[in-house]
Amino acid sequence: MPRIESFENQFEHYKIAITISEYTSLCPKTGQPDFGTITIEYGPDKSVIELKSLKIYMQAYRDLGIFYENAVNRILEDVVCAVKPLWAKVRGEFRPRGGIYSVVEASYPRRAP
Amino acid sequence: MPRIESFENQFEHYKIAITISEYTSLCPKTGQPDFGTITIEYGPDKSVIELKSLKIYMQAYRDLGIFYENAVNRILEDVVCAVKPLWAKVRGEFRPRGGIYSVVEASYPRRAP
Amino acid sequence: MPRIESFENQFEHYKIAITISEYTSLCPKTGQPDFGTITIEYGPDKSVIELKSLKIYMQAYRDLGIFYENAVNRILEDVVCAVKPLWAKVRGEFRPRGGIYSVVEASYPRRAP
Amino acid sequence: MPRIESFENQFEHYKIAITISEYTSLCPKTGQPDFGTITIEYGPDKSVIELKSLKIYMQAYRDLGIFYENAVNRILEDVVCAVKPLWAKVRGEFRPRGGIYSVVEASYPRRAP
Amino acid sequence: MPRIESFENQFEHYKIAITISEYTSLCPKTGQPDFGTITIEYGPDKSVIELKSLKIYMQAYRDLGIFYENAVNRILEDVVCAVKPLWAKVRGEFRPRGGIYSVVEASYPRRAP
Amino acid sequence: MPRIESFENQFEHYKIAITISEYTSLCPKTGQPDFGTITIEYGPDKSVIELKSLKIYMQAYRDLGIFYENAVNRILEDVVCAVKPLWAKVRGEFRPRGGIYSVVEASYPRRAP
Amino acid sequence: MPRIESFENQFEHYKIAITISEYTSLCPKTGQPDFGTITIEYGPDKSVIELKSLKIYMQAYRDLGIFYENAVNRILEDVVCAVKPLWAKVRGEFRPRGGIYSVVEASYPRRAP
Amino acid sequence: MPRIESFENQFEHYKIAITISEYTSLCPKTGQPDFGTITIEYGPDKSVIELKSLKIYMQAYRDLGIFYENAVNRILEDVVCAVKPLWAKVRGEFRPRGGIYSVVEASYPRRAP
Amino acid sequence: MPRIESFENQFEHYKIAITISEYTSLCPKTGQPDFGTITIEYGPDKSVIELKSLKIYMQAYRDLGIFYENAVNRILEDVVCAVKPLWAKVRGEFRPRGGIYSVVEASYPRRAP
Amino acid sequence: MPRIESFENQFEHYKIAITISEYTSLCPKTGQPDFGTITIEYGPDKSVIELKSLKIYMQAYRDLGIFYENAVNRILEDVVCAVKPLWAKVRGEFRPRGGIYSVVEASYPRRAP
Repeated sequence: MPRIESFENQFEHYKIAITISEYTSLCPKTGQPDFGTITIEYGPDKSVIELKSLKIYMQAYRDLGIFYENAVNRILEDVVCAVKPLWAKVRGEFRPRGGIYSVVEASYPRRAP
Repeated sequence: MPRIESFENQFEHYKIAITISEYTSLCPKTGQPDFGTITIEYGPDKSVIELKSLKIYMQAYRDLGIFYENAVNRILEDVVCAVKPLWAKVRGEFRPRGGIYSVVEASYPRRAP
Repeated sequence: MPRIESFENQFEHYKIAITISEYTSLCPKTGQPDFGTITIEYGPDKSVIELKSLKIYMQAYRDLGIFYENAVNRILEDVVCAVKPLWAKVRGEFRPRGGIYSVVEASYPRRAP
Repeated sequence: MPRIESFENQFEHYKIAITISEYTSLCPKTGQPDFGTITIEYGPDKSVIELKSLKIYMQAYRDLGIFYENAVNRILEDVVCAVKPLWAKVRGEFRPRGGIYSVVEASYPRRAP
Repeated sequence: MPRIESFENQFEHYKIAITISEYTSLCPKTGQPDFGTITIEYGPDKSVIELKSLKIYMQAYRDLGIFYENAVNRILEDVVCAVKPLWAKVRGEFRPRGGIYSVVEASYPRRAP
Repeated sequence: MPRIESFENQFEHYKIAITISEYTSLCPKTGQPDFGTITIEYGPDKSVIELKSLKIYMQAYRDLGIFYENAVNRILEDVVCAVKPLWAKVRGEFRPRGGIYSVVEASYPRRAP
Repeated sequence: MPRIESFENQFEHYKIAITISEYTSLCPKTGQPDFGTITIEYGPDKSVIELKSLKIYMQAYRDLGIFYENAVNRILEDVVCAVKPLWAKVRGEFRPRGGIYSVVEASYPRRAP
Repeated sequence: MPRIESFENQFEHYKIAITISEYTSLCPKTGQPDFGTITIEYGPDKSVIELKSLKIYMQAYRDLGIFYENAVNRILEDVVCAVKPLWAKVRGEFRPRGGIYSVVEASYPRRAP
Repeated sequence: MPRIESFENQFEHYKIAITISEYTSLCPKTGQPDFGTITIEYGPDKSVIELKSLKIYMQAYRDLGIFYENAVNRILEDVVCAVKPLWAKVRGEFRPRGGIYSVVEASYPRRAP
Repeated sequence: MPRIESFENQFEHYKIAITISEYTSLCPKTGQPDFGTITIEYGPDKSVIELKSLKIYMQAYRDLGIFYENAVNRILEDVVCAVKPLWAKVRGEFRPRGGIYSVVEASYPRRAP
């Protein structure tokens, strides 16, 4: 998996939201392509996500067999690992399959609602 | 009624929302078909809803005579029974009949607002 | 005024929203027709609104001269009286007159905001 | 300025929202016309705004040179003075000038956010 | 950088929102133009932003090489410096690059969420 | 039925379209109210429809039992009779009944398509 | 199959369009439900489609295994047979299956484009 | 009435469309303000409309008592007179009054449809 | 490339439109993924496209380096070859790259506009 | 001005449409920035526009003082010169200035409508 690169943050207590509308992966059961939109929101601490590396990171899912839940939770963990944000949230909205439309949402720090 | 199957959850404290826009059942009074959109939101604990079994489960309503309130509350109970989530919410939006549009919403655990 | 009928509720602590988009009444001052959309939301206790009787109840406004505020508050009172809900909210959105668009909203139990 | 008339309120603790989408005034600096939408929300106490008088009141801005901030705050004060509501909010959304779109919002009672 | 001018505020505790949909700057890395919409919200204290000077101020970004995060945070600081508001929020929504859409949001006073 | 009044036309060869979005009548079979939007387009010859009289004319349908087809064709004939236009077209779009949405369209002079 | 009933037409050369947004049938290959919207447009000659019978006719597709092309062409033939219109057009828009959305359109009299 | 100014056209056979969404005038009967959107389309011959003068021209309607039909036809004539275009079309869409929405459209050269 | 399968057509002179909103391929120059929506419209003669085989055919573009123009023209040729339609049209709408959005459209039989 | 590059066309009689939503130039009179969306449609003959060079070509307008009419007609001429298409059309939609929104459209070959 390509690394999400970061650069130094110069400001305090603000919020960044990034929407990748061209996410695609493969269904691990059927091999069929899945499509979706991934939104990453976070409060940067010492570092900020470098967008070009994020794009390359996201493209690596193209040939990966992965379930929706795993994709969203893994992206959250990779973002947290890359920039150690104060908080982060990842939301995946996946295109309907068989008339069923799915959204998965995970937050850091992990916390009961 | 077909069973809603589940598989093991691997992550903590996140949220899944599933929208089935092709719900249809029969009105128990008139026998006329009803149509609607069902949204299931939940916080998975040990297990996650398997989508294919959910699709088959939802299709079983096609030939069932059932009122809106009963359908939403029953789906909630079947979901709770199948995956024992931390929390769950089911929302049914039914297509207008006689210029009247209905939405029914139930939550688990049951709690006064 | 036709009665809003009810039937027995079988579930606890959920929410019903009903939208009647074909409300019409007469302006008591000018006799001109008014048009609007009425939304009734409530938490059922022992009984649930029977939709067909609600439709007939709403049609009785067609020949009634009544102000917006009175219509919304009266519907609220008639709903409360019919099904004794845990809580209820009625919202009337009325079509523009002279470039002025009005919304009136009342809740039960009555409470300062 | 024409007076905003009122009539007696018969109900307790509800909310009225009025949207006037045909507001126009003049810029006091350039004399150029400004256009916008004014929304008045309030909780009526003893009296309710009479809509026809409000329409005439709003039309008086047509030939007035007034800044956005002043218009919104003045309407708020005139509404408060006319119906002595429990609370009130006025929002003005003004059409873009030079690619800049402005919204001004004031509330009664005046309070730090 | 042109100065954001102000004029004296005459009212207490209200809110102003200004949307500049024609923001453009240059990417400091590639020299390519970036486009976006900037929204400034604030609670005026003693003074209010003069819109014409804001327009000129915003146009100065046209030939500036600046990252999204820096632009939003700098506009926030320049607004705070110009009108010393009770509070302020700046939001930049930038047009997609490579299928990635970014939003940056900063608030004064700076505070953990 | 109230008369559609007219006034003298002063221009040649142009087109007028009028949309009445608050049409309502009664179903002659069930007595239930029907709702719809009526659009009248015409090329005025010697006279033009007076809008206030048209409004009163349309309101007379409120207590009339009439089918969709008859309403549209009758409005067409009454318009033709009132202003003797060069051409005219009436379109009625009626709100869904039982999931069925109807549009009826008639033109003068009557002509095979 | 239930019959599409008709009643006598009283007007010349006009057009009727009927949209049934609650069409559902079964896929003859997989047995899975299909959903769609059917639009029937026609120029009535001696008779007009009776809407209630059309509704019952359309509901009969609910338990029928039929391909999209066959459904649209069959509805066209049944409409032509029932009311012998001057012309007719049937359009079926079917909900996506596997990311593929289909529209089928047939006209009477059958004619090369 | 202020003059619509023009400047020399340098190109052949193209089309210009100008939309003025802030048109307002007075109703000659009631004195009440009317609002609308005016669209001017034309094929320039020797000269092109100067936009600033058009803006001033349109603002002169603000204090004018004029009917919809007259406004649209007069603007057409003033445009034709100012720039002698190959062809021109003026369309006025006026905001609803009493639930009635009007559109008036006139073309040069005047021609039966 | 997987074959587009067909089955026998049973009707005359109608039209089928198929929209595949999940097209993706690779840019032959940069290797970056492209995304788009492909619409195929045709008049079937002796045979009709089998949708499942079309889905598999379209998925084969996922790993193909191909320009927009080539993709659209190739799909047209493969469709014509598979079902020998009376006429066909393929339209590709591709997601923006660098602020540039492209649409390519080709028809059979090939003909000057 | 940067050159619009081309590459060899391999297909006959099709259509390409390119939309550049990030056009900006300067007003030659006031020096103020203008913004708009440019759409180029053409029927390629021997060559096709290379998109990257078009992007660079369009960016050169950023520092250019040019009127709307001149921009659209010049882009048309540069496109015609670069790829000698069978036909071409350029459309510029410019963001409102002073409540006035302009669209300019030119075609090749130049022809009276």
